[in-house]
Amino acid sequence: MSKEIKRIAVFTSGGDAPGMNAALRAVVRTASSHDMHVYGIYRGYEGMIDGDLERLERGDVGNIIHRGGTILKTARSKRFMTPEGRRSAYESLLAFDIDACIAIGGNGTFTGASVFTEEYKIPFIGIPGTIDNDLFGTDLTIGFDTAVNTAIEAVDKIRDTADSHNRLFFVEVMGRNSGYIALNTAIGSGAGSALIPESDMSIEELIDTLKMGARRKKLFSVVIVAEGNKNGNASEIAQKVQQAFDFYDTKVTIIGHLQRGGSPTAIDRVLASRLGFAAVEGLVNGQANVAVGLVNGKVQYTPFEDAISKEKTLDNDLVRMAEILAQ
Amino acid sequence: MSKEIKRIAVFTSGGDAPGMNAALRAVVRTASSHDMHVYGIYRGYEGMIDGDLERLERGDVGNIIHRGGTILKTARSKRFMTPEGRRSAYESLLAFDIDACIAIGGNGTFTGASVFTEEYKIPFIGIPGTIDNDLFGTDLTIGFDTAVNTAIEAVDKIRDTADSHNRLFFVEVMGRNSGYIALNTAIGSGAGSALIPESDMSIEELIDTLKMGARRKKLFSVVIVAEGNKNGNASEIAQKVQQAFDFYDTKVTIIGHLQRGGSPTAIDRVLASRLGFAAVEGLVNGQANVAVGLVNGKVQYTPFEDAISKEKTLDNDLVRMAEILAQ
Amino acid sequence: MSKEIKRIAVFTSGGDAPGMNAALRAVVRTASSHDMHVYGIYRGYEGMIDGDLERLERGDVGNIIHRGGTILKTARSKRFMTPEGRRSAYESLLAFDIDACIAIGGNGTFTGASVFTEEYKIPFIGIPGTIDNDLFGTDLTIGFDTAVNTAIEAVDKIRDTADSHNRLFFVEVMGRNSGYIALNTAIGSGAGSALIPESDMSIEELIDTLKMGARRKKLFSVVIVAEGNKNGNASEIAQKVQQAFDFYDTKVTIIGHLQRGGSPTAIDRVLASRLGFAAVEGLVNGQANVAVGLVNGKVQYTPFEDAISKEKTLDNDLVRMAEILAQ
Amino acid sequence: MSKEIKRIAVFTSGGDAPGMNAALRAVVRTASSHDMHVYGIYRGYEGMIDGDLERLERGDVGNIIHRGGTILKTARSKRFMTPEGRRSAYESLLAFDIDACIAIGGNGTFTGASVFTEEYKIPFIGIPGTIDNDLFGTDLTIGFDTAVNTAIEAVDKIRDTADSHNRLFFVEVMGRNSGYIALNTAIGSGAGSALIPESDMSIEELIDTLKMGARRKKLFSVVIVAEGNKNGNASEIAQKVQQAFDFYDTKVTIIGHLQRGGSPTAIDRVLASRLGFAAVEGLVNGQANVAVGLVNGKVQYTPFEDAISKEKTLDNDLVRMAEILAQ
Repeated sequence: MSKEIKRIAVFTSGGDAPGMNAALRAVVRTASSHDMHVYGIYRGYEGMIDGDLERLERGDVGNIIHRGGTILKTARSKRFMTPEGRRSAYESLLAFDIDACIAIGGNGTFTGASVFTEEYKIPFIGIPGTIDNDLFGTDLTIGFDTAVNTAIEAVDKIRDTADSHNRLFFVEVMGRNSGYIALNTAIGSGAGSALIPESDMSIEELIDTLKMGARRKKLFSVVIVAEGNKNGNASEIAQKVQQAFDFYDTKVTIIGHLQRGGSPTAIDRVLASRLGFAAVEGLVNGQANVAVGLVNGKVQYTPFEDAISKEKTLDNDLVRMAEILAQ
Repeated sequence: MSKEIKRIAVFTSGGDAPGMNAALRAVVRTASSHDMHVYGIYRGYEGMIDGDLERLERGDVGNIIHRGGTILKTARSKRFMTPEGRRSAYESLLAFDIDACIAIGGNGTFTGASVFTEEYKIPFIGIPGTIDNDLFGTDLTIGFDTAVNTAIEAVDKIRDTADSHNRLFFVEVMGRNSGYIALNTAIGSGAGSALIPESDMSIEELIDTLKMGARRKKLFSVVIVAEGNKNGNASEIAQKVQQAFDFYDTKVTIIGHLQRGGSPTAIDRVLASRLGFAAVEGLVNGQANVAVGLVNGKVQYTPFEDAISKEKTLDNDLVRMAEILAQ
Repeated sequence: MSKEIKRIAVFTSGGDAPGMNAALRAVVRTASSHDMHVYGIYRGYEGMIDGDLERLERGDVGNIIHRGGTILKTARSKRFMTPEGRRSAYESLLAFDIDACIAIGGNGTFTGASVFTEEYKIPFIGIPGTIDNDLFGTDLTIGFDTAVNTAIEAVDKIRDTADSHNRLFFVEVMGRNSGYIALNTAIGSGAGSALIPESDMSIEELIDTLKMGARRKKLFSVVIVAEGNKNGNASEIAQKVQQAFDFYDTKVTIIGHLQRGGSPTAIDRVLASRLGFAAVEGLVNGQANVAVGLVNGKVQYTPFEDAISKEKTLDNDLVRMAEILAQ
Repeated sequence: MSKEIKRIAVFTSGGDAPGMNAALRAVVRTASSHDMHVYGIYRGYEGMIDGDLERLERGDVGNIIHRGGTILKTARSKRFMTPEGRRSAYESLLAFDIDACIAIGGNGTFTGASVFTEEYKIPFIGIPGTIDNDLFGTDLTIGFDTAVNTAIEAVDKIRDTADSHNRLFFVEVMGRNSGYIALNTAIGSGAGSALIPESDMSIEELIDTLKMGARRKKLFSVVIVAEGNKNGNASEIAQKVQQAFDFYDTKVTIIGHLQRGGSPTAIDRVLASRLGFAAVEGLVNGQANVAVGLVNGKVQYTPFEDAISKEKTLDNDLVRMAEILAQ
């Protein structure tokens, strides 16, 4: 029988994502409804190593549900990749009498938790917080919907000026390993094409598509470029395309860290609330070393090893649809 | 064997919802990729009766994906409720050689289509466009996500002033028959309580909850009120609560038609694109007299009679969760 | 010779307005650059009476420039209208060794300051913070630009749905004594008409204008109604107009307290920063019992008695222009 | 005596700016109220040369006041810089019987108009539409307020993530010759510093300021960089600063063409309406070959030669204030 959980620690780690505060709020208040004490760890695994914990009560997470970023700060920790770092982290948790941990973050965060929980017997639950939506075990990750909306709003603004000038714009969005943001931005903004890591589209094929549009007197185009696509960054692609199009004036915009910020959308706030709630309920019900997710609208717990190793795959039909609709 | 479909008509009907234009764009362009001709009908069933149709080509739906409202206009039609009205409508469709229709709207729209297709042999596909999310056969309706985000942004603004003044705000959102908007707004805004049609919460229980908050020195509260709740409109409820709270200054805001407008969110644009695409693909594949929806991320076709008679039910666990998180 | 000012108190009072936090930040940091100590008073004159003051340092006002509301809270104080209340307030200031006060608020706040400074010899500077823009001595008050933008965004959303349905909308905005918000909202949203306190337009004249629009096949209209206009509230006016228009479907939206909230606009943040800066510089240079304002882009100090008694007048040419442009 | 003006042409030229459509609407409707006919010229001077004009009536400019970009399109014209190009342009105006022109644009647009009106006797009025606010003869240019708000919203989002990660961000905004956007963005976002064309601040001085902040445990900073500053682009500056700061993680964001797009703010819509109105009224009253502007809230007409040659100067006191408030 597992030990009763009375004190839990919670932290955010890796890249920040809009909605992390909403998840934190849900963790604290759900735990409080079970009469648990909650400690917030600052700066992720770094703060765990340094013993930088602080008691969080219901009121401490009031009025944060709508705030971007994370009030616990976040960091990437090299020290936690060493056995010595993890030992220090464990000692911090012992010093504060922590019975279980909730980690809010992405793949790297869960990998750290997975290694740690093999070495030390303390239950961890992961909450998927990353704008990239590239985690197995959940249909959506916290922050993804906000990032896509931010990117689409940016393309809406660019369209105003593209339309006024007959221009070709390349807009680079985040996504080193996955095209979720880029594909959804392309569909949602009505952009002509998306260059994504999962696709083999070459520059030549892109140019053919753009030429087809030009023949139909399409006066401007926007191409969405995911960081991790195979043809280079947005500026490099723009240069290559420019040579094939005398007609167009080519411009590049890199949305960059704007995508990580901003007040979370409805979807992200509700998702974060549900996952924070389910993480604590999971602990109460004996779940350990799993990531919590929503799959088909239902809470699901996935072992860390699956969450970090299995791949979530883009729906290729949507790529085809995006092309048909943009023509 | 069904007749090959060469000319389709598309219209928007009932209350408008953000994303209707994105659905329309997807219908026109998908049909065009199948070499079909598309006719837009203005003002829903009214325009069908009056023969107010116009050819729509690919370019006619360019640069509308981000626009609220509907470029085809919409209306409620009393004449279509009569056999004479429907006969005129049928004659219009004949006059334009229409082989199939795509209707974008809510329950009333689908009911009209259901009656019509029993009388006349012309295939209809319904696309669920309504901010209320109260249609069976799809997890989300077009416009719902935008409406919830609009309501949450409004509550965010109200919280600024509520927090500065120690006030109790009642915010009325749409939803005559369902609490989807109200519940998601309450969770997403961190509001104290939601009064929804599906719940039996009385004024006395609401007052108890608010008093509990006041004892914990919660300095302001926001209560979300769905139009169709059982305790009256927001102003009436505010008056009753005011009598029990000398401490608070009580204010009422009715978000009203703001919820119907605005540029659609990412979710609504992608959903509308997918459903518009699937509606045409459905026609091509022999679907008729069904509503298209997304269930667990997959396209699904539901007979009109089920879509209009079966009930979609709110997840009651979320009501409980909202209360725990708000305390 | 006036005593050197070493400790100042600052507070927000009356209705909150977006940008008050930006003004507060500017006061604290400018004072700090002069080596003054700053105390924040909570809840305006109420907190002054109760001695609810707290030291504010540079870091305490970090990361607040973009937040709506006021971190010092605000209130209206009946006690301060009595000699006893003002005496208690004075004693609080003495107890904290306060040499001067900066009051951020509107007409009521300045009136209180004016009475107080006649009774007690302590220099006050007023910073105009009110969404109504109805204060003499400054071209713009803090919060006005944000409120107008909020109202215009609301009308933009309403136009989406009005346009889709051929409707007539009445939108009520704040402004009991002045039409600044209503007139700017009408011009900025392209609305047909504005009913404002400064105008004598009757319901009959409004109906004539709307009928003229209808004859030109204008399919929808929005009328902006200031709270303080002479023809009743938006609902009453809508009812009267409805009787004259069978054609239109008439709807009412009351924007209400949304106008007080939200992140301040660029104009309001820059204005608040400049006025907060100028308030402290004014104290340093011997100004007392004046309101600071920007007139023609330059800082100006106006004695409280003028600021509260003289009237700022709307430019009537703009009313005429709004009508010409909307037709 | 000048000839009565019965037909005017209007066009947008150079870089587009939010609010150009609002100005166009005002021109068309004011002219219409004087019973003039209005022709819109597409793509600026290019369309004037090509005779690409179209009659615009009141209804043609309905529902555009809130749209970014320009429905008349815009372009930069090399042909108009030649005597042959200008002759063709003049012949187009003759062919359409145009009595006067209204040009909406920036310095290049006014320069073209100035040259043209010296060669051909046709009155021109310029309306200042450029996001840079660098035109003499008006306190504000159309599009500037929207661009600053867009930049500030971007910095607000970046601050969320900067604050969560202890980072130093360099945000590049538009402004080749002037620091208006950069300085207002810096003040409005509370950023630490602004590198602008008008200032001599060196990298070393910037590093000193940032080190001072670091000593005060300021955990993140944002530096606003105008394109035209003297120390290189944002990426180059970031690299140089990075070497001096081990502590910080340095990131760069280039807002780019986002600043040109988006729905215009209240200020820009009202300004554009007033200037469009005043341009036509000016023509009626015999003004010619002048730019219209608002100075101290009043309409003013400035000869083209002054508008394009005189310099508008930044208020240096504001640079100093920005530094004091950010510390």
